[in-house]
Amino acid sequence: MAYLTSDPGISLDGFIAGPAQSLENPLGDGGEDLHRWMFEQPEEHTAEREAITSAGAYIMGRNMFGPSRGEWDLDWTGWWGEDPPYHAPVFVLTHHEREPVEMKGGTTFHFVTGGPEEALRLATEAAGEGTVSIAGGASTINQYLRAGYIDELRLHVAPIVLGSGEALFRDLKGLSFEVVASRSTPMVAHVTLRRTAD
Amino acid sequence: MAYLTSDPGISLDGFIAGPAQSLENPLGDGGEDLHRWMFEQPEEHTAEREAITSAGAYIMGRNMFGPSRGEWDLDWTGWWGEDPPYHAPVFVLTHHEREPVEMKGGTTFHFVTGGPEEALRLATEAAGEGTVSIAGGASTINQYLRAGYIDELRLHVAPIVLGSGEALFRDLKGLSFEVVASRSTPMVAHVTLRRTAD
Repeated sequence: MAYLTSDPGISLDGFIAGPAQSLENPLGDGGEDLHRWMFEQPEEHTAEREAITSAGAYIMGRNMFGPSRGEWDLDWTGWWGEDPPYHAPVFVLTHHEREPVEMKGGTTFHFVTGGPEEALRLATEAAGEGTVSIAGGASTINQYLRAGYIDELRLHVAPIVLGSGEALFRDLKGLSFEVVASRSTPMVAHVTLRRTAD
Repeated sequence: MAYLTSDPGISLDGFIAGPAQSLENPLGDGGEDLHRWMFEQPEEHTAEREAITSAGAYIMGRNMFGPSRGEWDLDWTGWWGEDPPYHAPVFVLTHHEREPVEMKGGTTFHFVTGGPEEALRLATEAAGEGTVSIAGGASTINQYLRAGYIDELRLHVAPIVLGSGEALFRDLKGLSFEVVASRSTPMVAHVTLRRTAD
């Protein structure tokens, strides 16, 4: 399997999105503040932004792809407009089949109904020599953490308290890592964790 | 008032002690693993250990001083033996009066029944030119964070998931900081946060 990474932006209290996510507010109340470093100071964080977008393929949960549930609204092609930032195959976990959706810039959304292992197999194949990144959301990252699949977890810690929302590290008691790097700017602490050998 | 600091050791999921704290297990299940960096690799973390023990006075909650509640058991003089690591005045928040307890090495425990502001006033006076550190536990640190009193919060993040326990950042929605420094070794990420001007 490919080397598996994930780059959650996380609050001090462990949330990677705020409460009350919706079509109008996809990251929930306060959730956009998790990513201020990336949008307000892109030059100060070039290395981290490049690492995030360098994967050979991505995996995401359906909740991250869009707000709808059940049967697909075929007009919905993600939150990111015509040219999503992935520029690579993206495998969306879902219970509902759908034909692949090809976007501009090299991003193609593939819909996987066979579960997380199947998505990982397909993403590994698509990534070739590249890494595979778990894009989110929290329950999808937690699922891959729980299975022990994530090799490198790169936390981007925003120095804010959200109070509630989508929690990373839920039901993962006993999980441990090695810290391999850290770097900070006033808006964020980047902390890179690597899976420890069992 | 003195420059106020705090140095919690914290898990990835935000706990500064595990569940089921007791006389036999004061840091709760898994809680000792938060401090492995300090005890197993003291030389690698000299600067952080010195910063923790450099305050001119300390404040702690009664729960951190000992497991008993209600009237004092006067035989109890803290978890730390005859020569506690503080080497300075320590102000213990309590609802029950008690005469000061002088230990070896310069640590004296003072018992404050007038509340957190009173403790801060007394500690500031005792610290002279020095800083005052909020030693813990979680509810005491959260109380001082909520009041906006903590100038510098130095998180020592252990790369482990505890799953439950005493949560830092509880009921502090909207709180934000600036990240002023970070440093890591395989066992810990040190992240220093400073209060932002309102």
